[in-house]
Amino acid sequence: MGQKLINAGLTSSRFGNISLLLNNKIFITCTGSMLDELDENCVVGVELEGCCPEDAIASSETCVHRAVYRFTSHEAIIHTHSPYAVAASLLEAKEVLPLDSEGRIFLGPMPIVSGSFGSNELAESVSSALQDHKACIARGHGVFAAGRSLKEAYTAAAMAEHSAQIGYLVKSYCCEAQGIDGAR
Amino acid sequence: MGQKLINAGLTSSRFGNISLLLNNKIFITCTGSMLDELDENCVVGVELEGCCPEDAIASSETCVHRAVYRFTSHEAIIHTHSPYAVAASLLEAKEVLPLDSEGRIFLGPMPIVSGSFGSNELAESVSSALQDHKACIARGHGVFAAGRSLKEAYTAAAMAEHSAQIGYLVKSYCCEAQGIDGAR
Amino acid sequence: MGQKLINAGLTSSRFGNISLLLNNKIFITCTGSMLDELDENCVVGVELEGCCPEDAIASSETCVHRAVYRFTSHEAIIHTHSPYAVAASLLEAKEVLPLDSEGRIFLGPMPIVSGSFGSNELAESVSSALQDHKACIARGHGVFAAGRSLKEAYTAAAMAEHSAQIGYLVKSYCCEAQGIDGAR
Amino acid sequence: MGQKLINAGLTSSRFGNISLLLNNKIFITCTGSMLDELDENCVVGVELEGCCPEDAIASSETCVHRAVYRFTSHEAIIHTHSPYAVAASLLEAKEVLPLDSEGRIFLGPMPIVSGSFGSNELAESVSSALQDHKACIARGHGVFAAGRSLKEAYTAAAMAEHSAQIGYLVKSYCCEAQGIDGAR
Repeated sequence: MGQKLINAGLTSSRFGNISLLLNNKIFITCTGSMLDELDENCVVGVELEGCCPEDAIASSETCVHRAVYRFTSHEAIIHTHSPYAVAASLLEAKEVLPLDSEGRIFLGPMPIVSGSFGSNELAESVSSALQDHKACIARGHGVFAAGRSLKEAYTAAAMAEHSAQIGYLVKSYCCEAQGIDGAR
Repeated sequence: MGQKLINAGLTSSRFGNISLLLNNKIFITCTGSMLDELDENCVVGVELEGCCPEDAIASSETCVHRAVYRFTSHEAIIHTHSPYAVAASLLEAKEVLPLDSEGRIFLGPMPIVSGSFGSNELAESVSSALQDHKACIARGHGVFAAGRSLKEAYTAAAMAEHSAQIGYLVKSYCCEAQGIDGAR
Repeated sequence: MGQKLINAGLTSSRFGNISLLLNNKIFITCTGSMLDELDENCVVGVELEGCCPEDAIASSETCVHRAVYRFTSHEAIIHTHSPYAVAASLLEAKEVLPLDSEGRIFLGPMPIVSGSFGSNELAESVSSALQDHKACIARGHGVFAAGRSLKEAYTAAAMAEHSAQIGYLVKSYCCEAQGIDGAR
Repeated sequence: MGQKLINAGLTSSRFGNISLLLNNKIFITCTGSMLDELDENCVVGVELEGCCPEDAIASSETCVHRAVYRFTSHEAIIHTHSPYAVAASLLEAKEVLPLDSEGRIFLGPMPIVSGSFGSNELAESVSSALQDHKACIARGHGVFAAGRSLKEAYTAAAMAEHSAQIGYLVKSYCCEAQGIDGAR
């Protein structure tokens, strides 16, 4: 799955993380692990309850994943640093609106949320946004996509970047003619 | 072939589908199958006649493929969600005109067709467009490319995105100087 | 080598061809062969002299390769349909000027040449341009890169697209401020 | 590692080089080696002291790597010709400012340095810039990223291109509205 993310250009090197909820336990990629070189040593199990782990083994985003699992019905989460989604989160004010048909129907508006990575603010904003969305974008940071399975989460992550790219290509095309409300 | 589509960036994750006409039977990828993980279990045979299958096994676009096989001479179809082609379908009014020499000669104008995915409207518009074209684009959705073989269909799909990318790069270059008729 | 071209995004599906001069004989990829699926059956030997082959086995660009081998000192040729190079050939008038340091030093200006593919006009314009260049671009068609070895030709082909992409990114950035002489 | 760089699109063909400091000896990729075909024959050991090697075996950038190892605490260096970073180095005056959160925090401003490749001027400017940065960009040439390990250097190289791409996408979006100070 990590290899798929890298090959698809959804993220690169050690950026991003993947987790799964299994029997009330969270299995998440270790911090700093290269997503295209994952093995069993790069996955750690953490409890559903509790604060951010002291040790630096689990992903630094663990508390964000934990909050999503606690406050939503999702059972898998993929976090990527997808370029068009990140760019859109810096260009749009509150949300990224897919213009393509799948994005409009399956994703809907992707909320842009705030909070430095690994922070409780980010944990709250992401878990709140994912209660009724499959994907949201942390401003200037990356996509959090979720679903009932890794496959669903992967599909949402791929759709998020696809919709962000389509939106960018369409809106940046001769955009001086379309107003620039979105631009900073 | 699915792997080739993913590697070429023509589509991603579970978006898109592939079918082949063999002895009046359609063999098509199952709905939701990851195109880079296809095996014999991800391909289902459906009849050339009849309405959209009730069960959710065959691709949700099955009735579109069926209509193409019934009303055209094509024997293979590839459907992709290629980013530049989708963007162009949202920027252009009626068709996407290739600017590169191969596209101009082998593809010609790519009609932009309407209809929500899996709908009879889409089935009619795509099958009508592919009667005298190798590729058309469902607005905001993706490319339908066809040929006498999977290789021909793949070539048309690759050409469609290539021509759409060239067209976008050329038309979006200093486009304020070229008029913006195409832009929404 | 074909696989490298596809993976590098320098060309796709069956677009482009590769040839090598060995003992006054040209070995060239067959017409329509997928460059990421080449095997010995996809390579054909043709004589250095003579007109374009009647049969459709050798690449349709054979006479272009032949002219290059006859009128230049190159011993390997790679032809690709690289997107940024093709776009630049439609945007610039006579040549594509690399802005990056390697391109400026090793490639120099890439002449934009004319002629429909496989034509004698293209053969003449390409072979003339490659007498004192490592790469030229057939307008709206693709790159012809050459060298003393396949590795040199591949390097020139990769450099050509790299320089074309850098040039496009730089010139299309706020280009209304830079004049639009290049734009059609 | 070379394969990872190529697959990630951070560089292509023979452009770029990788080195490691081990027991006061530098191990660096040979000049002209394809980074996706590296084997032990493509790596050469050179001394930490001394001028640029006379023979053409070690990378032509050897003296740049040497200077970095002598004047900084880095123990691994990756040099890439990443397209967005190179474009940004031609568009910005003195430095490339990451807009994404990781880039802002982990990289900070990426200095744009001068000097033709392999020159002492480049060696001085790069080693000086990398004293307090993880990555800098040689104008019109490419990225020099460094760290305590190849993994750290790779992460910095990937982050540099990611930040450059985000910055380009954001700043080129309707940039006529944002002023064009950066543009040539």
